[in-house]
Amino acid sequence: MLKYEVIARDMLATIENNKMEQGDQLPVLEDFVAQYGVSKNTIIKALELLETHGIIYQVRGSGTFVRGHRRQGYINLIENQGFNSALRDFKLTSVILALDVIAASEEVAYNLKIDVGQEVYYVKRLRKIEDRIFCVEDSYFDKSIVTFMNEQIVSDSIFQYLTKGLNLKVGFSDQFLRAFKLNQENADHLKLSVGDPAILVESIYHLQNGQPFDYSKIVYHYEETQFFAQGNSYYSLIDFD
Amino acid sequence: MLKYEVIARDMLATIENNKMEQGDQLPVLEDFVAQYGVSKNTIIKALELLETHGIIYQVRGSGTFVRGHRRQGYINLIENQGFNSALRDFKLTSVILALDVIAASEEVAYNLKIDVGQEVYYVKRLRKIEDRIFCVEDSYFDKSIVTFMNEQIVSDSIFQYLTKGLNLKVGFSDQFLRAFKLNQENADHLKLSVGDPAILVESIYHLQNGQPFDYSKIVYHYEETQFFAQGNSYYSLIDFD
Repeated sequence: MLKYEVIARDMLATIENNKMEQGDQLPVLEDFVAQYGVSKNTIIKALELLETHGIIYQVRGSGTFVRGHRRQGYINLIENQGFNSALRDFKLTSVILALDVIAASEEVAYNLKIDVGQEVYYVKRLRKIEDRIFCVEDSYFDKSIVTFMNEQIVSDSIFQYLTKGLNLKVGFSDQFLRAFKLNQENADHLKLSVGDPAILVESIYHLQNGQPFDYSKIVYHYEETQFFAQGNSYYSLIDFD
Repeated sequence: MLKYEVIARDMLATIENNKMEQGDQLPVLEDFVAQYGVSKNTIIKALELLETHGIIYQVRGSGTFVRGHRRQGYINLIENQGFNSALRDFKLTSVILALDVIAASEEVAYNLKIDVGQEVYYVKRLRKIEDRIFCVEDSYFDKSIVTFMNEQIVSDSIFQYLTKGLNLKVGFSDQFLRAFKLNQENADHLKLSVGDPAILVESIYHLQNGQPFDYSKIVYHYEETQFFAQGNSYYSLIDFD
């Protein structure tokens, strides 16, 4: 990890440990320089990294402030590291319904940019938060990238295994979200009724080189889940005229 | 606008006009330097801006690629400029149901960080896409910031008025999303049935100085709308241990 990344992580830990809230002001540049004993430039890069991730915002001539948001229990649609971090204050468990190597369907092949029939790991899980089922997850992993999985791995955090175990460099993700009426199978899984609302999130996770490796379809319990997204200012790219 | 912002907009226009897709490669740094007649540093800043907005991704040692995504008709949860840009290929119209100055309720005051009873503009609109109703929108604007509105303004793009007319510097937004069952009033508006699924998005828009100025609650027609969010890699900030 580069020096400015280490410092950014430390700043984030400080914000979290001190339970700083939106609008709380951070120290000025010079104080950070003195505190960390690094160059102005390194501090600027650390702050830019935190800004990109929606942790802080900088106001010209006025200072740096905590961005955050004031609602707990929301799943962040923009973070990439799976639930175990988004919901880290809660006890998460999984029930494994399937773990197989299968041939990619057309839909899976399209989303993973592989050939139809190519081998993928298929994992189906019920996810529980504090022993309440909050989603049904179907995941497909390109087996040429995710070369090995077993019951123990998929019963824990798959993303932790991918990054720490397989040492994959996880990059960006695309998330597609819509509401629909539950069918019988998913209603049974979520202990809801046919026709009840549900949210479907399709996710495509890419390596840092842009290659997709994980296509997941998650059906969420509408009473147990809510989502959060941070918008960046886009004013300088969009032409309003 | 700064030079690198002008260049970033031009690069974005080129990507869109050439209908470039995810994975398509952009010219190398030196070619951009020659094309725009500016310094390497300016090109790097333009590319960083595009990367922050999820337009491109850079792979060390390999080049710069279009990020994009391959699905049309999704509303981007991360862009800040309202629908008129997100859905700019479609014909959008509004039916105004209310336009009043009212006293802020507790909920509105909390989200706009103002005092209960302070004056806000309240706007209620049905939004139509190609003459099909796709959402019911309740918006509350802090009147000390959004000092004037009228029927003509709210029948068009409010964000265009705020940025071009009032010259407000729009910054980041927070978006909260969940599914629920429609009540009678919104079912009537959306021409759906009571109990049908709906998506509620609550948005808080801030000025660049961090001050909230717009709190909106939008109920979406579940068959007419789907959402898109781009996740950034977060690996360097999150400690998996």
